[in-house]
Amino acid sequence: MRKVYIIGAGMSRFGKYDGKHLPWRSLYDLGEEACLMAIKEAGVEPKKIQAGYCGTVNGGPTCGQTILDELGVIGPEGLPIYNHENACASSLAAFRHAWIDIGNGVYDLAIVFGAEKMTALMGAGLGPMPEMLVSSGGKGEGVVGGAIQVPEGKMLLADAGMAFPAFFAMMTRRHMYDFGTTAEQIAMVSVKNHKHGAKNPYSSYQKEVTLEEVLNSRIVCDPVHLLEICPNTDGGSAVILASEDVAHQYTTKPVEIRACVLIGPPYKGKVYPNTIKSTVVAGKQAYEMAGVGPEDIDVVEMHDDSAAFEVFTYEDLGFCKKGEGGRFIEEGKSDYGGEVVFSPSGGLISKGHPLGATGCAQLFEIFHQLRGECGARQVEGAKVGLVHNGGGLGGSLETMVMCIVILSR
Amino acid sequence: MRKVYIIGAGMSRFGKYDGKHLPWRSLYDLGEEACLMAIKEAGVEPKKIQAGYCGTVNGGPTCGQTILDELGVIGPEGLPIYNHENACASSLAAFRHAWIDIGNGVYDLAIVFGAEKMTALMGAGLGPMPEMLVSSGGKGEGVVGGAIQVPEGKMLLADAGMAFPAFFAMMTRRHMYDFGTTAEQIAMVSVKNHKHGAKNPYSSYQKEVTLEEVLNSRIVCDPVHLLEICPNTDGGSAVILASEDVAHQYTTKPVEIRACVLIGPPYKGKVYPNTIKSTVVAGKQAYEMAGVGPEDIDVVEMHDDSAAFEVFTYEDLGFCKKGEGGRFIEEGKSDYGGEVVFSPSGGLISKGHPLGATGCAQLFEIFHQLRGECGARQVEGAKVGLVHNGGGLGGSLETMVMCIVILSR
Repeated sequence: MRKVYIIGAGMSRFGKYDGKHLPWRSLYDLGEEACLMAIKEAGVEPKKIQAGYCGTVNGGPTCGQTILDELGVIGPEGLPIYNHENACASSLAAFRHAWIDIGNGVYDLAIVFGAEKMTALMGAGLGPMPEMLVSSGGKGEGVVGGAIQVPEGKMLLADAGMAFPAFFAMMTRRHMYDFGTTAEQIAMVSVKNHKHGAKNPYSSYQKEVTLEEVLNSRIVCDPVHLLEICPNTDGGSAVILASEDVAHQYTTKPVEIRACVLIGPPYKGKVYPNTIKSTVVAGKQAYEMAGVGPEDIDVVEMHDDSAAFEVFTYEDLGFCKKGEGGRFIEEGKSDYGGEVVFSPSGGLISKGHPLGATGCAQLFEIFHQLRGECGARQVEGAKVGLVHNGGGLGGSLETMVMCIVILSR
Repeated sequence: MRKVYIIGAGMSRFGKYDGKHLPWRSLYDLGEEACLMAIKEAGVEPKKIQAGYCGTVNGGPTCGQTILDELGVIGPEGLPIYNHENACASSLAAFRHAWIDIGNGVYDLAIVFGAEKMTALMGAGLGPMPEMLVSSGGKGEGVVGGAIQVPEGKMLLADAGMAFPAFFAMMTRRHMYDFGTTAEQIAMVSVKNHKHGAKNPYSSYQKEVTLEEVLNSRIVCDPVHLLEICPNTDGGSAVILASEDVAHQYTTKPVEIRACVLIGPPYKGKVYPNTIKSTVVAGKQAYEMAGVGPEDIDVVEMHDDSAAFEVFTYEDLGFCKKGEGGRFIEEGKSDYGGEVVFSPSGGLISKGHPLGATGCAQLFEIFHQLRGECGARQVEGAKVGLVHNGGGLGGSLETMVMCIVILSR
């Protein structure tokens, strides 16, 4: 397989474009903004793009073609366009598809993007999604996916009767029980990520919070606090991929895709209460593919939909031993000046989490970190970065897909 | 690129599994049945399958992994699983992804499948989708995709205020005006496809209808009759793909994928009132890729969501000249004993149209036709077959994706 590079990235500022918090903007507005920004940064002519890969959950079955139709990308011969729906990992599923196509010589130049509108349901007369009441799923009929909005503040329950926060809470409690992880340590993740997000103009919440504010924020599901989980967010994000044969025509600073792993759940019949097993398995595969280990990683964007999951991930990706994640954050090892910087963008907790747009926004951050273009939030000398993005339903890890990408300059 | 073969196919009987017309069955039941049937026919061990590609519209963001989780396909290392959502062409988008991956040596053995539940909305307390009231889409906010069910019989309108039947009606009327195509000629498509479906145990409507019955059936949107459009349907479908390196280990009768084209809309700024332009463009690309022309095609499964569109497609795929489609059906050229057999399965009109499951079900039919295994509906001596599957929203062709596959024994 040929080497494949990211040569440009774009994103909208994440936030609530509901006409109250931020001016009203549609799903398509946000997706188009991100795509145009990526196209401009890459310096490619739109009509030179040979394929489009969209990730979305709520965007509907023609999201990708609707967004690209406006951008001069589709010529008289049409264009292969795919819509990927892999829950919170939708745009990284799209990214992996594009990476393999380009690596194998099917195309030289492609656009991958994500778009999501969480503050308004696209039709059916239902209202906006209540903050954090993301329903879980599973195998029961009568259950909507984690991303479909819930009318009138009701929470729809899966087989297990669990929404995401309940799932976070059980896993968190177990980690505390097994390893002595403290509420303060978990809250520190939120403090750190809000501190990072305060320096990121693309983040939803561009303000810091104190440890006391986190611990005094409303309990959503004991022991999980409101400031420890990601907000509903609208947003768009995009990257331009190029083969090694053309990348250097466009930029002197391409970022290489060293590994991209996507796996469905390696769980069958087993329960792992204090670890995200798919992170462990996908992480190992990604390290092997890239020929690096955790000691080589300078910067990580991870799927911190819950602060506790960042603690899990320090361990599951091998940055520390199992059970030592609480001390890892407490000792500052996941922050600037530590061993690795987790979520310099602010992560899902501060930047926000518009499902399908999250993966490409994580790539946007690592791409610019590795190019040294992140200004006040730059991780000094960053050479190798990792993106961790899981998509699945909270009630049952059985349906989770995990995607891990390793990039280097 | 290596040659890639279909080595097994499965499908549920299509129909309304709502507990009234047929016994209640879930989306997952239907998908699993199809996958198991395909796995059995191919003779593969489930754990030898290296990747899964699911096409669904209503199935939610974790449909593929949920279905595969039950089948022994996912081992301790996980499995790459993708969910494709390209409207009515969802499982062929998944199929093209798998075909390219296997052709390029990424995997040797993969499963592609589709599943859709149209008679019950998965949650949110909304009722079943009213027959044929599939909403159109477009760029307006407040519009759901063509596949999202509409509560309480309301039709949600797009920018153009058009649902699918209105779109069918305008195109049909224009064809009549431009070329003198008659209502009787269009009704003959329905008569033919119901005749075919009557011999297909997988079809929703296993009964014939007369020309009078079609012409006397309710006008849905003048000049389109109820018996000229496809019904809402539940169903699952699957195929197993294998590289040329392994296909012959499993079967002596593999079916080769000679071409697979998927394109977004080549329409920008133009209106083509009596043709489906994306069929013309994708058809040409597919013929060129396969090295065949319409004269070589023995059997076609096409996207006859409306009877008139089969008439369009005779012309747009080059089986007759533009404007001669009406005579083509009238003279029996698209039926057994004619020049090519269109929709021996009964097509979408008789077999049904469970969105994401339609594409792989079309492959199921052509696969078995080319192996000579279709019994009473066998097209004698069929050597080359074509699948035509369009996905997009009725109100605007601007968002349509077209997929055309050519297979040969």
